[in-house]
Amino acid sequence: MAELGTLVLLRHGQSTWNAENLFTGWVDVPLSELGETEARRGGELLAETGLLPDIVHTSLLRRAISTANLALDVADRHWIDVRRDWRLNERHYGALQGKNKKQTLDEFGEEQFMLWRRSYDTPPPPIEAGTEFSQDADPRYANLGDGMPMTECLKDVVDRLLPYWESAIVPDLRAGKNVLVAAHGNSLRALVKHLDGVSDSDIAGLNIPTGIPLRYDLVEQGGDLKPANPGGTYLDPAAAKEAAAAVANQGR
Amino acid sequence: MAELGTLVLLRHGQSTWNAENLFTGWVDVPLSELGETEARRGGELLAETGLLPDIVHTSLLRRAISTANLALDVADRHWIDVRRDWRLNERHYGALQGKNKKQTLDEFGEEQFMLWRRSYDTPPPPIEAGTEFSQDADPRYANLGDGMPMTECLKDVVDRLLPYWESAIVPDLRAGKNVLVAAHGNSLRALVKHLDGVSDSDIAGLNIPTGIPLRYDLVEQGGDLKPANPGGTYLDPAAAKEAAAAVANQGR
Repeated sequence: MAELGTLVLLRHGQSTWNAENLFTGWVDVPLSELGETEARRGGELLAETGLLPDIVHTSLLRRAISTANLALDVADRHWIDVRRDWRLNERHYGALQGKNKKQTLDEFGEEQFMLWRRSYDTPPPPIEAGTEFSQDADPRYANLGDGMPMTECLKDVVDRLLPYWESAIVPDLRAGKNVLVAAHGNSLRALVKHLDGVSDSDIAGLNIPTGIPLRYDLVEQGGDLKPANPGGTYLDPAAAKEAAAAVANQGR
Repeated sequence: MAELGTLVLLRHGQSTWNAENLFTGWVDVPLSELGETEARRGGELLAETGLLPDIVHTSLLRRAISTANLALDVADRHWIDVRRDWRLNERHYGALQGKNKKQTLDEFGEEQFMLWRRSYDTPPPPIEAGTEFSQDADPRYANLGDGMPMTECLKDVVDRLLPYWESAIVPDLRAGKNVLVAAHGNSLRALVKHLDGVSDSDIAGLNIPTGIPLRYDLVEQGGDLKPANPGGTYLDPAAAKEAAAAVANQGR
């Protein structure tokens, strides 16, 4: 059997809606200029540390795809294989998509706001089909049929992500490939929850910073891959610590 | 059986070395600013004509990959499946890689220059391994082993391209997918030669313009796919005519 590949997680840089403090979810907004800079910095870190991906997995959302494209170009790995899947998408924020986070906090109060943002199993109200910020008519999701989410809690993200981890990412790692996963705050949180065995209650407190590759060295354990370095290792630990603190204060 | 998908060929926009009039081949130079603009215009043409790719095939070279990324982003198809293969690469220009076209013309004379550029089966001298503009140590070609070319004539390109056409692109078209192929002057020339049955001598006169998608509608014929519109249809015919004339004058 091949030596296991290394897993690298990369959360997309700032999007235009992050900059405007709007709930984004599945709305397909682009990176801001800052976000593009963050993505290139992520690529520099890959190159500097010699952690060169053999394949990249992305969501179907532009901010993750552009992050991967920019980072890989800087790392001179633009030519590697690519896989995309909706299961790596950000959490669907339901009816909150397109709403301002601060206004939502003021309108619904701290308790309800934090429940929607950070509870494990309480989704926001579903988005109405055919409205401005819904994706039910988007061709990229046409094959989901009735499985198309109209809102999601983090538990829903874990449930839809894990089949992709098992069927698409793990086989690449077992084939000895270094795998870059370019995705989102909540899809990466779901993956880290699984990898590190984080509890349903503790996962809310875990904030993955943007643009800083997070490396997991893996070992076989009970038929699954588990981290040899629990919690992973950021390629720029000082920047990661600073950024995580900033993310925790979003919406304030 | 599914209805056949549509094939769209897109030659990358101007690279920095096109701008400097250097033989490029497998040297992995980026697009120039003009090249990026051309790529975005290609994406606009896809969007305007509603010719939306379901999958993109690219070479392993940055100028084709960036062209695909930029065009697909503009056409809102950044999320489609991606396949990359060295068999879509530009012709390997051997020892001419990195040399100025005008200087090469002056040094070797019109006859030798045109033989290297346009003869079907005379490759330039092979590049020396381990030199500045050779790719024999490039990790992206590590799996080629002894099959790694050190120079190519157009016939070599046809020979290495067709297995990919048959095994990777044709199955997508037969599955009903619209296929975008983002590639290079000579790899697309090789494909067009096959599609349109162009003779070994006539293919030299065929110049595919950059950044203008070329559509082929296909029909099943004798176990292969053949064009219902021989020669293909440019999505911007006037611009294509103008650009093809300019390409023909390169190196003068």
